[in-house]
Amino acid sequence: MAAAAREAAGAAARLPTGTKDLVLSSLAGLLLSRRDYVTAENARDVDKALDEGLPASLIDRLRVDAKTVDEMAAGLRDVAALADPVGEIVRTWRRPSGLLIGRMRIPIGVIAIIYESRPNVTVDAFALCLKSGNAVILKGGREAFYSNRALFGLIREALARHGVDEGVAQLIETSDRDYLYELLKLNDYIDLVIPRGGEALIRSVAEQSRVPVLKHYKGVCAIYVDERADEEMAVAVCLNAKVQKAATCNAMETLLVHEAIAPRFLPVMLRALENAGVTVKGCARTRQIVPGALEASEGDWSEEYLDLVLSVKVVADIDEAIEHIGKYGSKHTDAIITKDYDNAWRFVREVNSSLVLVNASTRLNDGFQLGLGAEMGISTTRLHAFGPMGLEELTVTKFIAFGDGQQRH
Amino acid sequence: MAAAAREAAGAAARLPTGTKDLVLSSLAGLLLSRRDYVTAENARDVDKALDEGLPASLIDRLRVDAKTVDEMAAGLRDVAALADPVGEIVRTWRRPSGLLIGRMRIPIGVIAIIYESRPNVTVDAFALCLKSGNAVILKGGREAFYSNRALFGLIREALARHGVDEGVAQLIETSDRDYLYELLKLNDYIDLVIPRGGEALIRSVAEQSRVPVLKHYKGVCAIYVDERADEEMAVAVCLNAKVQKAATCNAMETLLVHEAIAPRFLPVMLRALENAGVTVKGCARTRQIVPGALEASEGDWSEEYLDLVLSVKVVADIDEAIEHIGKYGSKHTDAIITKDYDNAWRFVREVNSSLVLVNASTRLNDGFQLGLGAEMGISTTRLHAFGPMGLEELTVTKFIAFGDGQQRH
Repeated sequence: MAAAAREAAGAAARLPTGTKDLVLSSLAGLLLSRRDYVTAENARDVDKALDEGLPASLIDRLRVDAKTVDEMAAGLRDVAALADPVGEIVRTWRRPSGLLIGRMRIPIGVIAIIYESRPNVTVDAFALCLKSGNAVILKGGREAFYSNRALFGLIREALARHGVDEGVAQLIETSDRDYLYELLKLNDYIDLVIPRGGEALIRSVAEQSRVPVLKHYKGVCAIYVDERADEEMAVAVCLNAKVQKAATCNAMETLLVHEAIAPRFLPVMLRALENAGVTVKGCARTRQIVPGALEASEGDWSEEYLDLVLSVKVVADIDEAIEHIGKYGSKHTDAIITKDYDNAWRFVREVNSSLVLVNASTRLNDGFQLGLGAEMGISTTRLHAFGPMGLEELTVTKFIAFGDGQQRH
Repeated sequence: MAAAAREAAGAAARLPTGTKDLVLSSLAGLLLSRRDYVTAENARDVDKALDEGLPASLIDRLRVDAKTVDEMAAGLRDVAALADPVGEIVRTWRRPSGLLIGRMRIPIGVIAIIYESRPNVTVDAFALCLKSGNAVILKGGREAFYSNRALFGLIREALARHGVDEGVAQLIETSDRDYLYELLKLNDYIDLVIPRGGEALIRSVAEQSRVPVLKHYKGVCAIYVDERADEEMAVAVCLNAKVQKAATCNAMETLLVHEAIAPRFLPVMLRALENAGVTVKGCARTRQIVPGALEASEGDWSEEYLDLVLSVKVVADIDEAIEHIGKYGSKHTDAIITKDYDNAWRFVREVNSSLVLVNASTRLNDGFQLGLGAEMGISTTRLHAFGPMGLEELTVTKFIAFGDGQQRH
């Protein structure tokens, strides 16, 4: 299977943009015309999951209804509408010899993606890999067996319809761990592995893989409200960052407040949070200002709650805020709320998280929100791609050179 | 040691450009003023290597004379003169919400470099890592023990002179393999490993490492002389690519010639090669045209000779040339010699090697030649960096966002 993907990767890299887009829109059409088939196959998975008593949150992620199918189809048309990154010349420069050098985007090659429950990843990951000229090996969750098989059948049909080597997409149906671990040793055939799912899945893939892995670890995201903040904006942005969708990796888990404004700001902020159902765990000074708050333990500062819970700390200045983020944060997403020019730039320069924001919500760390058009996940690995991965992040550049007889002396 | 490097990486990332450049020029000054000390320490290694009967080529790479020291110092001044990549904003775009998004270069973090014999790598790798804001762990060869210790002492002295955390550079002095393998498991402390040396070293590092590895495998480089080539230029460029320095990874190992010009071109080309001392191994058609050539075996097409030996094949057209390169090449460096517009672009688009040239010598695949200013090695890994690695390739980008209260809805 890996060898077939490697073989097909050469063809995938050379596919004309028009053909790739036709495959994607054919697949969108197939999803819409076979909507009932897809939801029926998904129902088999859901029934089985219910029988097995799997958790409600998992079944929620597993479920594909008519609306989900429509969203997948719309997502495919969105990817088709994005610019093809393959062949783009990123930059050129001329050498004294007259040689013109450039860097051109090419696909990575063969990308394996390992994911859990959500069947839409099958379609999304295929779309992004095809558009970026890569071959893809899909390994979905055991619980989505029938859904993934049905979606993969449509993928192969769309490929065949436009005469594209079907090997560019491969589906692993077995849930045998040893099979997967064997696959992860094949670094001559697979160029990159992207695990999407819980920390346990990601750690086990990283542990076993000899293929490079782009990991997405937890998001312990902080917002620092500076002395010179627009306090009204701070309340609105922090509230959004905490409650708009608390169970996500880019939700705020820690609020840091400058001591000069804490006595005025914290009571307003914590009341707004309380009204939204948020439980606050504060440092000693927070609890002096707002006596109702629970006590934060040392462990709370590095906790990813993924829930309506928030750690709050009063800090002496921006130094302490940056130090706190460096010590307890996860380098995922951090923000400062300030009207101070120097502090804004210092925060942007010195906090090396995948997204650093000034006066905006941490919830914006997402490929769609940042304007990448689509995303393959968010990388917290500081190599190749750091942050949301769109089409560009599924490519690498080669050097190209146009000469008229240049030699080395 | 890895923990100390991780600790120092935060400071390294924030170093002002001026401080980094001062350290580099102080180190250049120290090298020049202690030239005799460095060469004397190196002589201890060379004497030991001679006693142990190590190969002449190794001793050649190991030897540091006054001129080598001067070159190291000059290299340091060159790196100091390069633009600091850290903090560069690569691109920005505005979202409909008014949020301005950008990508800013940041250091990778902690980089380990594992190398053999050449002591100048100690200084070069330190310089590139410091300038790009990374902490570096240096692991040189056993045979260069005294040379590396002396050079590292000067590095630490230059750091201390400008008040920079000395932890940003670490030297591993033991040659215990297990110690190294333990280090390569520390993916929480080390972000990237770059092995420089023979294939055996690189394979063993890739095998053992849980830290991402940028590999540099062999270069089986080809030049395809197209039907519409400037034949005089083709002879000159091919000769340069083969004989200017035959023992390098970017030397030509395979010559592919279009059948329409082979009867006229090959006799001239092979005579020039023969005059330069090159042994030719040809396909059947080559040997019909030039009867003196040896017979190429199937294995020869994927052989990295690193010597004055060349495989020569007559091909029917550009398709066969591209197919041959895809099948036998190593995706390192390949070139086409042509005056044909379509074939030039087709070769550039379809051959996905780290450098693809039109009408220029494969020997130009090198950081200095391509204008990167300096290089950390050439990556043949199609992830993060593909081709020569300069300062930029020792960085990654984070997303930054400047807002005025943007939230997610």
